[in-house]
Amino acid sequence: MSKGVLAVVSGFSGAGKGTVMKRLMEKYHNYALSVSVTTRNPREGEKHGREYFFHTNSEVEEMIRNDQLLEYARYVDHYYGTPRSYVEDRLNEGKDVILEIEIQGAMQIKKKVPEAVLIFITPPSMEELKNRLVGRGSEKPEVIESRLKRASEEAEGIDKYDYLLVNDQVEDCVDALHEIILSEHLRTQRNCELINRIRQESRIFMKGE
Amino acid sequence: MSKGVLAVVSGFSGAGKGTVMKRLMEKYHNYALSVSVTTRNPREGEKHGREYFFHTNSEVEEMIRNDQLLEYARYVDHYYGTPRSYVEDRLNEGKDVILEIEIQGAMQIKKKVPEAVLIFITPPSMEELKNRLVGRGSEKPEVIESRLKRASEEAEGIDKYDYLLVNDQVEDCVDALHEIILSEHLRTQRNCELINRIRQESRIFMKGE
Repeated sequence: MSKGVLAVVSGFSGAGKGTVMKRLMEKYHNYALSVSVTTRNPREGEKHGREYFFHTNSEVEEMIRNDQLLEYARYVDHYYGTPRSYVEDRLNEGKDVILEIEIQGAMQIKKKVPEAVLIFITPPSMEELKNRLVGRGSEKPEVIESRLKRASEEAEGIDKYDYLLVNDQVEDCVDALHEIILSEHLRTQRNCELINRIRQESRIFMKGE
Repeated sequence: MSKGVLAVVSGFSGAGKGTVMKRLMEKYHNYALSVSVTTRNPREGEKHGREYFFHTNSEVEEMIRNDQLLEYARYVDHYYGTPRSYVEDRLNEGKDVILEIEIQGAMQIKKKVPEAVLIFITPPSMEELKNRLVGRGSEKPEVIESRLKRASEEAEGIDKYDYLLVNDQVEDCVDALHEIILSEHLRTQRNCELINRIRQESRIFMKGE
């Protein structure tokens, strides 16, 4: 069985990443979402190892020192990170692992796992992004404004990603994301074993057998 | 309309490239095959610009000097090459152009067109390759032996390709080839215009509009 592909998905807030990921998991069954490490307290109904791995500050800091996190960040006084062993176990089981993280985390991953595939999801236009954020009706104008400003900053980093996906129709976007990951499985760098086998088998022909 | 992708397909003699290409063209309609330049004489029924562009030796040598061929080779005293302008015209029309050529030509293309996608097609095993060549029943043992020896040499170059496709079931192989090319359209490097548009549109948000 071949090793899974590690795919990192980022995108503007309002690009519809959440819907795309949910639909991808429903529609195809080769994927595993990563479970993050956090130092915040579990909420009602959250279970260690399902929503998050809950750890203390000193535990997470030791993980960082021991290079056991593929990426991490601090938000509002708490650590959030991606545990290397959890991701590697899923990849070795042949699952394609999807991480939904922001650009800083994506860059950390690319450094530690150069074969990771980085995918950025955008709405068809920034006008559309604004409409979607306003249309939700649940956010205050200041929140919308700050999200749009952040989108503007994030737009500067898109070319650091491998693929750019326009989320116009959710189903098309989900299928395109799936096809990217299927195609990535066929990259020569991911198929060294197969290439070596072909070479070994073909050497008998050189001996004129 | 976005520019087409230039895809170079190589593979062992007997890997079934011809069948895969034929089926790809029948099944999907975004592809154009390239028309080669040659110095050999037209055969009965062959038409200039359809099977080949027929040229004299000195014409082809001038094309080579003027960098008008993306790749070329000499076989049995005749030149064969891929005309740059023909390929670029099709790409600019939005067609994905497929070149079926050998490894030396593929390497020339990669040098001149770094964004070209190189795909190598292999049968599931070398034993299977031998069986297919023998099974055709039309080749002499010496011919089969020389093809297998060449396959063994070609196997050394597989890792210079971007993708490795195993042709086990033709339809699966055709679909995988198509998906690779669709996914390649979504690479960030091929979408600079879109990225620039997103950035420009998003700058109004920074001004707090």
